[in-house]
Amino acid sequence: MTVTTPAGFEAAGIAAGIKRSGALDLALIVNRGPLHSAAAVFTSNRAKANPILWSEQVIDDGQVSAIVLNSGGANCFTGPEGFQVTHRTAEAAASALSIAAGDVLVCSTGLIGDQLDGEVLEEGVLSAAARLSATGGDDAARAIMTTDSVPKTIVIEGDGWRIGGIAKGAGMLAPGLATMLVVLTTDADLAAADLDAALRAATRVTFDRLDSDGCMSTNDQVTLMASGASGVAPSLEAFTAALTEACASLALQLQSDAEGASHDIAIEVRGAVTEDDAVEVGRSVARNNLFKAAIFGNDPNWGRVLAAIGTTTAPFDPYLVDVSMNGVRVCHAGRPDAPREQVDLTPRATHVLIELHAGEASATIRTNDLTHDYVHENSAYAS
Amino acid sequence: MTVTTPAGFEAAGIAAGIKRSGALDLALIVNRGPLHSAAAVFTSNRAKANPILWSEQVIDDGQVSAIVLNSGGANCFTGPEGFQVTHRTAEAAASALSIAAGDVLVCSTGLIGDQLDGEVLEEGVLSAAARLSATGGDDAARAIMTTDSVPKTIVIEGDGWRIGGIAKGAGMLAPGLATMLVVLTTDADLAAADLDAALRAATRVTFDRLDSDGCMSTNDQVTLMASGASGVAPSLEAFTAALTEACASLALQLQSDAEGASHDIAIEVRGAVTEDDAVEVGRSVARNNLFKAAIFGNDPNWGRVLAAIGTTTAPFDPYLVDVSMNGVRVCHAGRPDAPREQVDLTPRATHVLIELHAGEASATIRTNDLTHDYVHENSAYAS
Repeated sequence: MTVTTPAGFEAAGIAAGIKRSGALDLALIVNRGPLHSAAAVFTSNRAKANPILWSEQVIDDGQVSAIVLNSGGANCFTGPEGFQVTHRTAEAAASALSIAAGDVLVCSTGLIGDQLDGEVLEEGVLSAAARLSATGGDDAARAIMTTDSVPKTIVIEGDGWRIGGIAKGAGMLAPGLATMLVVLTTDADLAAADLDAALRAATRVTFDRLDSDGCMSTNDQVTLMASGASGVAPSLEAFTAALTEACASLALQLQSDAEGASHDIAIEVRGAVTEDDAVEVGRSVARNNLFKAAIFGNDPNWGRVLAAIGTTTAPFDPYLVDVSMNGVRVCHAGRPDAPREQVDLTPRATHVLIELHAGEASATIRTNDLTHDYVHENSAYAS
Repeated sequence: MTVTTPAGFEAAGIAAGIKRSGALDLALIVNRGPLHSAAAVFTSNRAKANPILWSEQVIDDGQVSAIVLNSGGANCFTGPEGFQVTHRTAEAAASALSIAAGDVLVCSTGLIGDQLDGEVLEEGVLSAAARLSATGGDDAARAIMTTDSVPKTIVIEGDGWRIGGIAKGAGMLAPGLATMLVVLTTDADLAAADLDAALRAATRVTFDRLDSDGCMSTNDQVTLMASGASGVAPSLEAFTAALTEACASLALQLQSDAEGASHDIAIEVRGAVTEDDAVEVGRSVARNNLFKAAIFGNDPNWGRVLAAIGTTTAPFDPYLVDVSMNGVRVCHAGRPDAPREQVDLTPRATHVLIELHAGEASATIRTNDLTHDYVHENSAYAS
């Protein structure tokens, strides 16, 4: 049920005809209230898709009644015509639901640079509105998939309230301030400002620390909508903890479905001077193609880890650094330690521990390996 | 003849037994004078190999009499023992050539984190010293190869003077301030300060704009040695132009031998506000795995180019950008232009032109595509 598990929400996922395959490609999620508070975070990519440009305006007053999401086209670099398509999509939802277009968020995902057909979108929204139901969350989760092989969903039970969520994303997966397409709903009674604070806190340590392939999308958006239908107003602390749990689960689901990947790698950096340093070090390793290819080959090549750390601005002494892989310390104080042969990298779950011994801060960045299948999937024409 | 083409230089390349395969693995290049002026630039990676730590001291006075280079091991992250091996290597050359160890540069390349055998190095240097000749440059070029499939050499004829050069490098190929292992020799009569100015000017627009795989080495070093044996003192301008030509040729040779690559991609950025902006934009595209995989698949996926530009700090308006691939403008003013089908990406030489229309500065970054073979070569155990 996902986003429709919390009280007050209805959803639908339909095949609007955007995808030639006839697969589900349009989702509509509606907040029936009584509250309509919302928050959203967006990609920090400066090349923003039209739905991002639209949604940034919509979220400004913290009030959202519905969100339309389509797969089959990113509506990015499609000019003023593309923006008009987004606008028309929101107007269609507003008309069908008797709400204001300014309270309708729009998200798109798919190929950059292809024009979407406004008429197809409009008819799709009307059709979805006619099929809204309190059990439509699963269809909505499926309708936003692109190269995803499975839908990503989460439900967290609070004390008298719930959080539900859906996510899509399998490539161009290196969020900055936001990520992929994610919709989170809750029936908790919380104002927009509280939702915003909770959402930023949760995404900062979950989606923002996922860096599957170093490529930041133009369409990333994470939206959180509250209906207040439970009548329960949890503490911001309890709600943020539950929301972080939901986001962490969805981030792990995204990682484990990353295009072509054969390893889910957690790069844990300890002993950094600041948390930002730990993130920079982890991200630098996560984006190093030689490291990623070595993990694909089950090769504990720690020299590539240290070479990647050396490109950062984080304070560290190369001759204090320890590196462990799946529990075996292969590098101690910048020198060879346990023989590489002791490391078993055959499991999909891979843990790389980097101890900088420079301070007390830590962070974990999650990434994937670089595989033949990644190259194959992303070299196919216009994928 | 390469580095031994300019008068005053002798070289040797031998199999010292560092590589198990028995291939050439140690090069010695000697400057017989009368001048011994020299300059060098080093990797900006903060994790520096032992030979880098040593050579940074040696170059300090601008005087170099010989350089020893070995393949088969990077001598990086090998602790004080590793530094002693480098020191012993320099002492062996000093003893054999009756010069000061403080005038001997050392370069190493190969796997990071493996200890080199000091005795093997010492004996190799003595053996190489006994085989020095004025025709040894080609053997030296072969002795520094690792995953290179061909030796890289260059000779430039000046007006009464010459420049010769050798280079190695096929992976971990994203120099910062320096690159790979490169030795350049000249018989021009130039002081160390002039060599330094010429070398920095030449490398800034050649090696520093090669970014094959985004991975910066711990062992990069480019050395320039002048013997003055021609008796000719060219203008710094003429010498810098010739040196830049030599470096540009070696950089192109490195690019065309990059591990697993099937395309040599020149990313030309025009209309940037500053040259630094143009370099940042070009490098961001060059490091985007989705773009690189698309080129491998002969897919003119310009959306990935724009998504990569959007992650930079360079001033630009997404709706002014033009993108052309191999002469076909596929994106005009941030919107689809010519059909993708018109672009022929089958040739190895690939030209991507990005026109930002934000200013007058330009730069070209050279990179390679992301291929199955790249993943394969770099996932093999301890490559």
